[in-house]
Parts: sequence; C-alpha cells; structure tokens
Amino acid sequence: MKISADDLAEFCAAALRAAGVSESDAQITTDVLVTTDTMGVFTHGTKSLRGYVRRLRAGGLRADARPRIAAEGPAWAIVDGESVLGMIAATFAMRTAIDKAAGAGIGYVGVRNTCHFGAAGFYAHLAVLRDMVGIAMANDIPTVAAPGSRGAVTGSNPLAYAIPAGEERPILLDMATSTVAGGKVYAAHATGRPIPNNWIVGPDGLPTPDGALFPSQTALTPMAGHKGYGLALLIESLSALATGAAMTWQVGNWIQSDPSLPTGHGAAFIAIDIGAMGPIDQFKGRVDALIREIRAAPRATGTDRIYVPGEMEWERRQKALADGIDLPEDVIQHLRGVAEDLGLKLPVAFETGDMAKSA
Amino acid sequence: MKISADDLAEFCAAALRAAGVSESDAQITTDVLVTTDTMGVFTHGTKSLRGYVRRLRAGGLRADARPRIAAEGPAWAIVDGESVLGMIAATFAMRTAIDKAAGAGIGYVGVRNTCHFGAAGFYAHLAVLRDMVGIAMANDIPTVAAPGSRGAVTGSNPLAYAIPAGEERPILLDMATSTVAGGKVYAAHATGRPIPNNWIVGPDGLPTPDGALFPSQTALTPMAGHKGYGLALLIESLSALATGAAMTWQVGNWIQSDPSLPTGHGAAFIAIDIGAMGPIDQFKGRVDALIREIRAAPRATGTDRIYVPGEMEWERRQKALADGIDLPEDVIQHLRGVAEDLGLKLPVAFETGDMAKSA
Repeated sequence: MKISADDLAEFCAAALRAAGVSESDAQITTDVLVTTDTMGVFTHGTKSLRGYVRRLRAGGLRADARPRIAAEGPAWAIVDGESVLGMIAATFAMRTAIDKAAGAGIGYVGVRNTCHFGAAGFYAHLAVLRDMVGIAMANDIPTVAAPGSRGAVTGSNPLAYAIPAGEERPILLDMATSTVAGGKVYAAHATGRPIPNNWIVGPDGLPTPDGALFPSQTALTPMAGHKGYGLALLIESLSALATGAAMTWQVGNWIQSDPSLPTGHGAAFIAIDIGAMGPIDQFKGRVDALIREIRAAPRATGTDRIYVPGEMEWERRQKALADGIDLPEDVIQHLRGVAEDLGLKLPVAFETGDMAKSA
Repeated sequence: MKISADDLAEFCAAALRAAGVSESDAQITTDVLVTTDTMGVFTHGTKSLRGYVRRLRAGGLRADARPRIAAEGPAWAIVDGESVLGMIAATFAMRTAIDKAAGAGIGYVGVRNTCHFGAAGFYAHLAVLRDMVGIAMANDIPTVAAPGSRGAVTGSNPLAYAIPAGEERPILLDMATSTVAGGKVYAAHATGRPIPNNWIVGPDGLPTPDGALFPSQTALTPMAGHKGYGLALLIESLSALATGAAMTWQVGNWIQSDPSLPTGHGAAFIAIDIGAMGPIDQFKGRVDALIREIRAAPRATGTDRIYVPGEMEWERRQKALADGIDLPEDVIQHLRGVAEDLGLKLPVAFETGDMAKSA
C-alpha cells in the first residue's frame, strides 16, 4: 500500500491528539515517526504509534507533562523526561544540546525518565540543521549477550550521528550495537531458512542458526563481539549511569510492561558546533570531498555502487515524498489497530490501496 | 624475555633523549609506551620506538617544538601538533580537553599536524584520573575497505573510551574500527592456516582466507560491515575534517613514508566531567553495580568468566608490574634496533633473558 507522507502524518497527529497529546507535541512526534518511515526504516516509524498511544492512555506516558532541565552548566544539562513521549524528551534534549554547543562549542545533554524515542538518527540530524555534528544514543532493556554470557546483558543500545555536508547530503548513521536487530531475526526466520550463525546465541550461550528459539531462549550477539559490547557500555554510561535513568534490567519493556508505569529509559545527545572552530564552509567542503572520494573508489566485483552512510535512506525519502510511502503489511496492521483503539477514520489509501487523496 | 617496567622505561627515555627529546617529553612518551606494554598491547608500545626515533632524527617528527592551541572557546580547542611526537600532542590535547571539561562540563579538542600516538586508550584514561569520562580517537592511512569497495577507503581509525569506577577498575575499551588489526592477519597467516573469511578482502574486493595476499593486494574489512565503516567516518570527521589535519590518502604512513616529512595525522579527544552534573560517588557506585551485574551474569557453556572491557588489560598490567613484562620477540628485535641506531646499551635483561637488575 502506498500512502502520501502528508496523509500518514495527518492520521498520526490525529491519533496522538486523540490520546491527549497537545497539538505541538503531536506535530513533533509525527515529524519523527513519518520522517523515519519515508527513510524506509519501518521498524522505528509509525509502526510504534499503537504502543505509544496505549501507554499514553494508560498513564505510563504522560501527555500533560513537559520535559525539564533538572541541572545544567555552560556546556551540559541533565533533562528529566517526566515520562512524556520519548520523541518529545529527545527533541527537547537535542535542542538543548545544540543551544549549549552554540555558546560553548560542544554540548552534552543526558536524559532520564524517558521512553522509546524511535530512530536515534532523527535527533542527530537536528544538529545538522544548525550546521553542527550531532550524536544521539539511548539505553534499552537487555536483549544482547556479552562475549561469554548465556543470556542478555546489555540493551541493543543505539548510536547515531549526523555530519553536515555542502552540496552532498549529510552523512547519517543510525545503528544498534547488536549484530542485527531482533526484527531482522524474526524476518529471516519467517523465510523458513536457518539464520546466519553469528546473529543470536541459544540457551547455552553458544551461536545458533535456529531462529525459532528467538527471543525467549536466546540473546542477540553484540556487533563485532567485544567491540559492540564495549560501545553498549559507553552508551549505557552516558545515557543512564550519568543521568539517573534506569539501567539494564531496571528499564521497563516499552511494549510489554504494564503501560500505566514509566519505563525509565535513559538517553544522551551531543552537539558539536564545528562553525565555532573554523569556517563551516571549509568543513563542509571537506565532507563533500570525502564523500566523493569514497563514491569514486574502485568497486568490488559485483558491486555497482559504494554507499556513504545515510545515502540509501536519503534516496528512499526523496522517492517516498514524490511517490508515496510503501508501507509494509505489519505497519499497516499496527495503524489499523490505532484507528480501532481510538475510533479514528483511516486515510483513504487504507481502503483503496493507493494514494487517492482523502480530500 | 622478562624485563621490569622500570628498566624498560629507563631505556625508552634514554633513547628518546638521545634522539633530542627533552627530559619531560621523554618521560611522558615513555609512560604512554611502557604502560601499553604492561597491559600486553605490544603492537602499540615500545615496539614503535624505533620508528619514532627514526622520524625524530630525520626531522619528520620535531623534538624542538611544542604543540600549541591554534584556536579555542569555552569547551573546545583546536591544537596544532607542530609535528611533535604523537604522544606529546595527544597528552597535551587530552589535558586541554580535561581543563575545558572542568570549566564547562564537557570539552572537545581536535588535533592536526600530529603523528601516530600509540594506544588511544591511554589518553582516554587520563580523564579517568580526574574522575571524568574520556574518549580518544584518531585517523590513519587507508587500510580498511568500505562495504563494496575493492581496496582501502578509510583508516582503521581507533576509538577508545574510559569510565571511572568506584571500587572496581575503570572500564576501558580501545578498538580499531576494522574487524581485526593488520598485525593479527600477519600473526594468523604465520601459523600456515587460512585466516577467517571475514578479515580481509582480496584484489577483487571479495572476502578471502588467503593471508598471503596481505597487505599489498588486500584491504582489512570494517568491523560489523557498514557500522565500523560508519564509525570510521565519524572519527575521520572529528579528527581530520574539523581540525584541518590530512585526511585519508593525504595522511603519511608513519613507518614507511619519507621520515623527514610530517605525516599530518589528526586526532580528537573528549572529556566529560560527570562530577559537575551530580555526585561523582553515586556515578561510580552505579558503574560498580553495572560491572558486578555483568560479572555475575549466567555464562555460556565453556566460558569461565565474563570480562568487562579493560579487565584483561588491568590484570596483565598488575602482573607485569609485579613479575616483569614478558616482551615478545618482535618487540625485542625492535628495541635492539633502537640501541643499535643510537649506540645505546640495552638493559641487562636483554643479555640474561631475565630480570636481573642492571644496577
């Protein structure tokens, strides 16, 4: 099914308003989720809306609160998310980091008492809109093994960054610190074939190709072994240990835990104001040169193109804005659920399967 | 051969002084290199001394210069390394980042015109000595492929961090963004067996188990594919694009290039003053709790112990300080070369093969 970004955004914002979210918070949250869908990152876009709405209605997410600065200094702040939507707390925190960086050159903002915030890359990119380098990260419930552990030890703690370019599109990377996301294990297993032997560990803590064991009897592997595990601990430290957020097993599962309770996630954001340190155009010119050098590098047999991080996502977004978003079936089902839960009308595309305007 | 850390340090400092380095710079550099050897990271310790001395004597590294702050603001600085030893520029830069963080909460210092600096983790740990989180990174000559490239595109750009703990030892990770370091390819190939198929790509850009092709006809693979490649670009941006350092192919090979010329490496350092944001003892207590939680986690079949990043290195150091450093043969050969180049007397251990004191 193809739906225009505008129609999807209209439905998303209406659902959030129906769940008690203010007009401006609904717009911000919708921007995060629909932008993510246009980039083809469907695991972190409007698919999550139903879960957020459920927690908003049950009280675990608060529609009536505002994130607030609990403590701050020249180049840092600790934000209490006050259990508002993760997208609202994260946007507020990254904007605060950008403001700090505008004054001091770099800004760190840690957040406690927040929740799942969608795609970390969205917030990193907010810094690029101000000609800064942005970094975003968060902790989550343990789903990833450490080298030698039998079960999960850390979250798949995401790390994202964005770097402003000149004529080229910004470099943008958004990655989990597990080898693959859990969704990929489900998807690969659904094909009926064994999964690669380095994605999950089984009940004995050893690698297994048996996707049927996931998730209850398994844990994801950390990306690149001890390196991904190590990065997850840095992210845990800056997102949770330094902010007072829940850590590892204290974090609530934002989908499965009691929706009337906060999940207590932590997050952290860093903005670096490169333009304060030298001519920003010079920096952007060097980023362009790096991108073009990589693009022109000799290619491996069978490879048509070498991608710079974010390039695939920017191209998908361009296409989605022109031709509509090709929503996968699981996202459609979740959105149907939102309409059902709230008694809302779905966009016309849901009936006709195409982008016939609802107007 | 076992040598005491003190004897190794004495020789190392004497060699640097003989190459024209000041007493204090020789001490700092020796501390970096010998500490690295005590941790068992022999690829980045005194093994490199001969190369540094060669460049010092040829003029590509300057013994008579000082790194200087080229530009600065409340929470940042750009340092010109002035082609001094990489260890001197990096120590100066991390100390500057720590000072900035002490005033502003976080500090970023980028460095241009520097050289190979040994183990990045040493500088990250300098922040821990001031109860801060430290992050260190650097760019290097391209040796690592991008997904789909036929040859090298980025350096193995290292990333290190250190986090202060309370009763536990600091968490410390120092990693290349390639799957494995080049030295590991050599070492594995030396056993005569094929190397794992995900370490290098061959002349066609496709994975190969043929270690004999390394390095001339191959490139290392990025760790975790596009993720390691993406991290390498972030490191390149903060170390080189933002600082004016040489980038990718402009960087000089610190071992093989004309030793009378600077290599132009870039580096970057970040310190975060957690104690400015809340009680440092509370943070350290949470770090201890995280470490202990991981240590107590259920273990995989066949695993005796789950390590926290840095734990192996701290234990090796403790043993090396007590029993002497068990230098591998390649390091010994490099140190013999230093003595030969400079007409210096080697410590007694080199003759007797044990720690009989030279006094």
